[in-house]
Amino acid sequence: MRFAETDAQGIAHHANYPIWFEVARVAHLERHAGGYQRLRDEGIEAIVLEVHARYIVPARFDDVLVIHARCSDVRGARFSYAYAVERDGELVADGTTYHATVDAVSLRPTRVPSWLLEAVAAAEGSWPSGSSP
Amino acid sequence: MRFAETDAQGIAHHANYPIWFEVARVAHLERHAGGYQRLRDEGIEAIVLEVHARYIVPARFDDVLVIHARCSDVRGARFSYAYAVERDGELVADGTTYHATVDAVSLRPTRVPSWLLEAVAAAEGSWPSGSSP
Amino acid sequence: MRFAETDAQGIAHHANYPIWFEVARVAHLERHAGGYQRLRDEGIEAIVLEVHARYIVPARFDDVLVIHARCSDVRGARFSYAYAVERDGELVADGTTYHATVDAVSLRPTRVPSWLLEAVAAAEGSWPSGSSP
Amino acid sequence: MRFAETDAQGIAHHANYPIWFEVARVAHLERHAGGYQRLRDEGIEAIVLEVHARYIVPARFDDVLVIHARCSDVRGARFSYAYAVERDGELVADGTTYHATVDAVSLRPTRVPSWLLEAVAAAEGSWPSGSSP
Repeated sequence: MRFAETDAQGIAHHANYPIWFEVARVAHLERHAGGYQRLRDEGIEAIVLEVHARYIVPARFDDVLVIHARCSDVRGARFSYAYAVERDGELVADGTTYHATVDAVSLRPTRVPSWLLEAVAAAEGSWPSGSSP
Repeated sequence: MRFAETDAQGIAHHANYPIWFEVARVAHLERHAGGYQRLRDEGIEAIVLEVHARYIVPARFDDVLVIHARCSDVRGARFSYAYAVERDGELVADGTTYHATVDAVSLRPTRVPSWLLEAVAAAEGSWPSGSSP
Repeated sequence: MRFAETDAQGIAHHANYPIWFEVARVAHLERHAGGYQRLRDEGIEAIVLEVHARYIVPARFDDVLVIHARCSDVRGARFSYAYAVERDGELVADGTTYHATVDAVSLRPTRVPSWLLEAVAAAEGSWPSGSSP
Repeated sequence: MRFAETDAQGIAHHANYPIWFEVARVAHLERHAGGYQRLRDEGIEAIVLEVHARYIVPARFDDVLVIHARCSDVRGARFSYAYAVERDGELVADGTTYHATVDAVSLRPTRVPSWLLEAVAAAEGSWPSGSSP
């Protein structure tokens, strides 16, 4: 938690969570699928269609948070990710993001590349035990 | 749209929308219910339980966006708001936020004050015609 | 002041001021010189070389701040802006930003276009009385 | 570099650097002086008086940046930090921040505690070789 991410309630402002989700998603793609940059190199952009975040307990300045991310679905030109934000084993928040892959120039939907499909299918994604993503 | 709100895809980064929702919610409370500060003055904090955002078309630098907000539900210690982001009459995004009112010291749930209840019930909230919030 | 711009000290986080400076600079260019987009349309990008901000009194949630901006110098491929952030006539912060105009493709320095030079020279820029920018 | 920190020029937006400076400053205090929280526990707040940032080359998405921080001066109720942002040994940006320690309740200046003074004086702070901070 950065100090800049706190608000006047003394907690992490809720709009930071989608940013943290993205940081975890990018790291997951990096580790398992050659990185988000590989997508962009192939002329594909991944766009965000929807974000859901659920806040369970507040996060505070200097908290060390672990953001778990896993690809929860891929079909056609769509994929989704699920997230769990943990602090010392306690669930702080969770969420889901929905994405589409589009041609970087025409912005038309284009199928999720098979290498990405295979990579994220094979990936386990770290996930907190005891939660049902 | 601020330039600082753009990202390397040349569009408004999706994490800005929850911030814009909040700006509209605060303005709505200001206009209809004496402001968010009045809540805080009574020792009540409104916390965010959930945020949903759905992105329909990208927003770009220098776009003039209108954020419509209306209180969509109040019961007990919970209330929710619905949002529609428009540019020149086109729906750019929509969303919902879920909130709870809590005692500022104990952080225990406390009923939404009746003055707030009445104020938001009476308020119409600007809402784009043709959409069904 | 947006609530998202506060921090756990209950005041506007200091990293917001460069964003507000930019909002005022873009509005100043819009009003006096056809807008920042006109620069981009000519294949010119304005880049930021330096930012200085001086914080005098804290800004708080719901404060209405006026950001004064004026172009303080233009020569060759460089220009600078001065800013004053006011609340009810009180100086909250001031600052300066230094910029260069570069070719959008080669990123090499290119002279500030004469139309921009003339426009900002002619512009007065709102400025708080009693301060010496 | 987070994707959310990029802007429509495809580079890190300049307003992120003061945030990165703060992250490095907080980490430096953590390592050498028991942390920023120890200050707050003693009823002292450190406020930001001034920020200077100088941008040398742009940072891009997925860049791994190292932020060097060292306390450059302490006297009375004032202290300052110097920063150097590096990517693969190349200087991307540098900067300075000026701070005051104040009583958390009265907000009056209060001397920098001696334990902090001694800690930061003893600390070397990582610093890129070949640069003259």
